[in-house]
Amino acid sequence: MQRDEIRRTLERANGADVRNAVRNGEWTWPTRGLARGYVQTAVVGLPSDTASDFLLFCQRNPAPCPLVEVVEPGGSMRSARGGDPCTDLPSYNLYRNGELVEQGYEIGAKFGRDVTWFVIGCSYSFEFILDEAGVELKGMSEGRGNPIFITARQCVPAGVFSGPLVVSMRPVAEGQVGLASCLSAKLPIAHGMPIHVGNPGALGIADVARPDFGSPSPIADGELPMFWACSVTAQVVAQASRVPLAITHKAGHMLVTDLKVLSMMA
Amino acid sequence: MQRDEIRRTLERANGADVRNAVRNGEWTWPTRGLARGYVQTAVVGLPSDTASDFLLFCQRNPAPCPLVEVVEPGGSMRSARGGDPCTDLPSYNLYRNGELVEQGYEIGAKFGRDVTWFVIGCSYSFEFILDEAGVELKGMSEGRGNPIFITARQCVPAGVFSGPLVVSMRPVAEGQVGLASCLSAKLPIAHGMPIHVGNPGALGIADVARPDFGSPSPIADGELPMFWACSVTAQVVAQASRVPLAITHKAGHMLVTDLKVLSMMA
Repeated sequence: MQRDEIRRTLERANGADVRNAVRNGEWTWPTRGLARGYVQTAVVGLPSDTASDFLLFCQRNPAPCPLVEVVEPGGSMRSARGGDPCTDLPSYNLYRNGELVEQGYEIGAKFGRDVTWFVIGCSYSFEFILDEAGVELKGMSEGRGNPIFITARQCVPAGVFSGPLVVSMRPVAEGQVGLASCLSAKLPIAHGMPIHVGNPGALGIADVARPDFGSPSPIADGELPMFWACSVTAQVVAQASRVPLAITHKAGHMLVTDLKVLSMMA
Repeated sequence: MQRDEIRRTLERANGADVRNAVRNGEWTWPTRGLARGYVQTAVVGLPSDTASDFLLFCQRNPAPCPLVEVVEPGGSMRSARGGDPCTDLPSYNLYRNGELVEQGYEIGAKFGRDVTWFVIGCSYSFEFILDEAGVELKGMSEGRGNPIFITARQCVPAGVFSGPLVVSMRPVAEGQVGLASCLSAKLPIAHGMPIHVGNPGALGIADVARPDFGSPSPIADGELPMFWACSVTAQVVAQASRVPLAITHKAGHMLVTDLKVLSMMA
């Protein structure tokens, strides 16, 4: 089957179906738009000597790093029945001393067995409720990633972890900015309300057409750029903090849980 | 095509698709579960001499009769582009002096051209958000109607209109009663929170296995009956008030709008 054909099937599938497709090697691409209505998550895997500092970092920075759960070595996931952060993401990043040294699917099983996994809500979760409310989200049906920017704002540090806040951007029609704000605010497990609407310069973003990760998304007349805290923050902070070992999801390649988005609304 | 096959197509369709299927005579059955994510509505059509009393009745009884819009004779719908209350419901009831004298599709076009149409939010709208939150709703995938009961409670009267409050019942797992309550409360346009959970006798319902309309829905161990105000109230009140002429939807046969449920959440 072609990628687009599998995509159309997995859009209507549940979280377990997507995890199985990932394990079977049937789905190796970004997960945006898959398993509509299910919470998607980023992951960060850290050895025990840095894990407790990172737990505190998440507590202090709930907008970019809303914790869905923490899975200790050998533990089971609660948010995904039979789920495994070592095998259930289509691709991973491996960092050593702050350098990205490898990317790929095998990293999870090869280096992830002895780490503590932090499972962090991803904006692909709130995109479902925005889409269902009629807010047009560019590139979603094709699974294209949103533009992601490293901002000039700093996260609240914790132990060895410090670094910049990272945001995702979506252009939204001016008449729907209020709706998109209020709806996303109802989902604190997936970054909550936007942290900024309008001028990218206020976040230290020099050129909104040149994202640090993901694809550009042009802002049309009558649209405003909306910025949400992004779980890629965890990657960038792990890198900036130069910890000896960190495994993260590769941007856009998420773990899909069994949690239904609507059941998590505040 | 068989009914089940059309159903599966229309479940994923939008409001306009369902309205077209109704106009073309392709869909003549209840609309529960169709056009997932779109607001479904009950209708009441009344001549000008009773319409203003009914508007006041709706204002005083927002739980059973939450007004989506009021369409005057010759007017256009705002909640459904090109929509027409005379042709867009699969079946209608015709009441004269409180007696149900006719049921069928042709009633709308035959008697509905000179009436004012009251378009009232239906619980099929909040069922989408409960379903998406993982609350099991019995009979939804088959399009079976919920049990509906005339209660011992009276609505607040207005002009010529008075009569009992009518409720729909859904059995819900005890552990999901809180979630189902809070989520439905976020949708005042579709009856809002349940008006009662538990003992049917408190509403004057003698036998919960014998509904006044719809199909029975057995309450399993570990489930509680949840009761929501129901737009069938409008039918029963029009009947009880013995107005000369009233046209309503036939129970379960709704008008599907273009409004997205998620965009209407409070």
